Amino acid sequence: MSNILPFKLTDELIEHIEHLIQEHKDEELKTYLQQLHYADIAEITHELSFDDATYVLRLISREKASEAMTELDDDLRDYVLENLSDKEIAQDLLELDTDDAADLIADLSEERQTEILSQIDDVEHARDIVDLLRYDEDSAGGLMAKELVKVNENWSVDNCMKQMREQAQYVTRVHSIYVVDDDEKLKGRLSLKDLLTAPPKSHIKDIYISKVDYVYVTDTSEEVARLMSKYDLEAIPVVDMTKRLVGRITIDDIVDVIKEEAERDYQMAAGITQDVEADDSILKLTKARLPWLLIGMFGGLGAASIINGFQQGMQNYPILLIFIPLIQATAGNVGVQSSAIIVQGLANDSIDGQLWNRLFKEFLLGLINGLAIAFIVMLVSHFIFGSEWFVSLTVCIALVTVIINAAVIGTFIPIFLDKRGIDPAVATGPFITTSNDVFGILIYFMIAKIVLGF
Amino acid sequence: MSNILPFKLTDELIEHIEHLIQEHKDEELKTYLQQLHYADIAEITHELSFDDATYVLRLISREKASEAMTELDDDLRDYVLENLSDKEIAQDLLELDTDDAADLIADLSEERQTEILSQIDDVEHARDIVDLLRYDEDSAGGLMAKELVKVNENWSVDNCMKQMREQAQYVTRVHSIYVVDDDEKLKGRLSLKDLLTAPPKSHIKDIYISKVDYVYVTDTSEEVARLMSKYDLEAIPVVDMTKRLVGRITIDDIVDVIKEEAERDYQMAAGITQDVEADDSILKLTKARLPWLLIGMFGGLGAASIINGFQQGMQNYPILLIFIPLIQATAGNVGVQSSAIIVQGLANDSIDGQLWNRLFKEFLLGLINGLAIAFIVMLVSHFIFGSEWFVSLTVCIALVTVIINAAVIGTFIPIFLDKRGIDPAVATGPFITTSNDVFGILIYFMIAKIVLGF
Repeated sequence: MSNILPFKLTDELIEHIEHLIQEHKDEELKTYLQQLHYADIAEITHELSFDDATYVLRLISREKASEAMTELDDDLRDYVLENLSDKEIAQDLLELDTDDAADLIADLSEERQTEILSQIDDVEHARDIVDLLRYDEDSAGGLMAKELVKVNENWSVDNCMKQMREQAQYVTRVHSIYVVDDDEKLKGRLSLKDLLTAPPKSHIKDIYISKVDYVYVTDTSEEVARLMSKYDLEAIPVVDMTKRLVGRITIDDIVDVIKEEAERDYQMAAGITQDVEADDSILKLTKARLPWLLIGMFGGLGAASIINGFQQGMQNYPILLIFIPLIQATAGNVGVQSSAIIVQGLANDSIDGQLWNRLFKEFLLGLINGLAIAFIVMLVSHFIFGSEWFVSLTVCIALVTVIINAAVIGTFIPIFLDKRGIDPAVATGPFITTSNDVFGILIYFMIAKIVLGF
Repeated sequence: MSNILPFKLTDELIEHIEHLIQEHKDEELKTYLQQLHYADIAEITHELSFDDATYVLRLISREKASEAMTELDDDLRDYVLENLSDKEIAQDLLELDTDDAADLIADLSEERQTEILSQIDDVEHARDIVDLLRYDEDSAGGLMAKELVKVNENWSVDNCMKQMREQAQYVTRVHSIYVVDDDEKLKGRLSLKDLLTAPPKSHIKDIYISKVDYVYVTDTSEEVARLMSKYDLEAIPVVDMTKRLVGRITIDDIVDVIKEEAERDYQMAAGITQDVEADDSILKLTKARLPWLLIGMFGGLGAASIINGFQQGMQNYPILLIFIPLIQATAGNVGVQSSAIIVQGLANDSIDGQLWNRLFKEFLLGLINGLAIAFIVMLVSHFIFGSEWFVSLTVCIALVTVIINAAVIGTFIPIFLDKRGIDPAVATGPFITTSNDVFGILIYFMIAKIVLGF
């Protein structure tokens, strides 16, 4: 909520904007858009056609447009960049902080990048962007910006004040003042308060705080997010292997990392393979959803051939068949619960060694939950479906076994994947459900075969 | 990573600390703990027994202990608070910012709160805490702190500088300087740069920026999180209904809100009803997991009675039965995918009206995915399981129908719940899976009955 105008995206607003575009009422459109926050402009462009979105982003000032472009979905951003001239993009890059600038053109071809960067007059800004483009986007290097305030430990306080006033112009928000030595190595940080109260002739090396958190340029963005949120840091300096200060990561970038991570895990648990939104095209949604459905299908066909293999039992004890959905649903649910807790624990780093303890605990949990459910099922099976007691008992033994199995598998697989360096989140959702479906039904019929002897 | 010591929680470390506690080597223990970050101390205490954790938190300085206590899980914090004296807790509250202080004692009885607060000498700090305790913890009021830097629009610049130096002592990090009128109403904000460069005799009202974002004290924490992350705000002022400035929310509190929200949604999707961790007791884990398993069980029993009701078909076309797991798994997977995308869209506010468009889109998606899967299943059913063509075709028609049904239900239910003001996340996971299981099997047999005429 802003006192300028609380922005609300409505169908009427979009229609109005489309109308203004069609009628070429550029002045009116520009006046309206120019007063909005760039995040709101980005929201609007996502509701327009790609061409209209491009039109809008060329119409408004480069300052506003460049910020809005940092918030676009990949497809739209690619389209817009293709339709902007090198000069326009170069202007955008100049408006942006180096990290956002590098992100904006990261997916373009190297030739296009070179052409665009050659149009930037501010050589240092261009060089910083080139430098940032080298880093993996999921690393500290990919998150960091070059804009920061740093002072040399050998400077005097009054020289320092002069230098800082200069540097602060280029930095949107000064979180910390970092202290480096003559080799640009990070030595510590400086509080503004200490700087203001120190005698002007004293040296930085006498007043700085040597305790400073930092990350390496190659650390993963997940690790940086974990550190910054655990230690409540608003900014953290980034150093290279020789501990030279190369950049700085701020908390707003971390908020994005945390949200993206959570969304990705959530989608994986739901069996969606790529980052999609409800508004994406049917083709994109199909691509994201069909693969997991196919895995589920093969699981289902596997289960079909297992049941087919127990035809004998099917004929002698048809009552066994009506419990297939129960066995399957329970195995799936238990597996998802176990794996979700472990995946979340691994993400929070709150799970350490002791694999056997954990499996034993899941075994106990499965046993307790299994007995509770089996007891009810036994009563229902006997009194409502009229199955004989020993058949009902068979169903219950199988059910408890299936639940324990699902709980143990749901715990084991994510931990195993994590130890192998694979993202354990892939072991949630359809993957764990499907394998538990198939295993569950196999166990069910095998136990029935042994107990009932068919 | 800190240059003091990169902290790593290991079993050896915990054993060492337990040993120090047992041997009452208080000095050694204190020296070690005192150099750690409070977040690391909190992590350690979670691995100790409740008594050892309390021991540790009484041993270290109140400054460190109070910060660590803000990071504890509910059970442990309650236990520790019960075992600390009113005086000790009062000291803790004095060390903390008002928002953390209020959160720390929020769950205590009113009498205990009163006793503790009466021990605080700093009357204003105590009053601020009392004030914050009034608010719902999921509202802006529950998130905000009283610590902020504010200036009156009628002050002169040099008076302002003097006042600010005073206020800044009590504020850990100055994000913004807020401008209020004589009635304490929020008028705008001030940049430090403008303040430093303005003529000393000029007045605040001539230099402040009137454009300022704010939230109301009653806004939900989700709404605050959405605004702050959308607009990349590091702090936002909070006003009451009459627009009086009452507090300030900083981005680190929002990071916690975002993480908690994501974890809650994730756990709901996985069928876990309360906030649990892998390390929680078996009893707590059972309480969180058994309810959803019981729902799944009743679904499974429902499916059993449906199958039981189609006994005729079971005898004539036993091949139908082997595809039950396939039908069920596919219905479950499709439902979870659809609902997850919608729930996430609703959380991001990227889903607007147009319910029918969305349902139609899901219908199309279901049709495409359904046909792809049905085609494979038809071939497998005929050539591998040897079912007649018209039986295979029946299975496929049912499969497509079940998929479309699951997709539409998975889309409809979260949107419906959201419109009714119910958190749509409850409609994910076992809930959607179970209803799709039962519906899916019902549809399957009904279509089979109609087509095959048994």
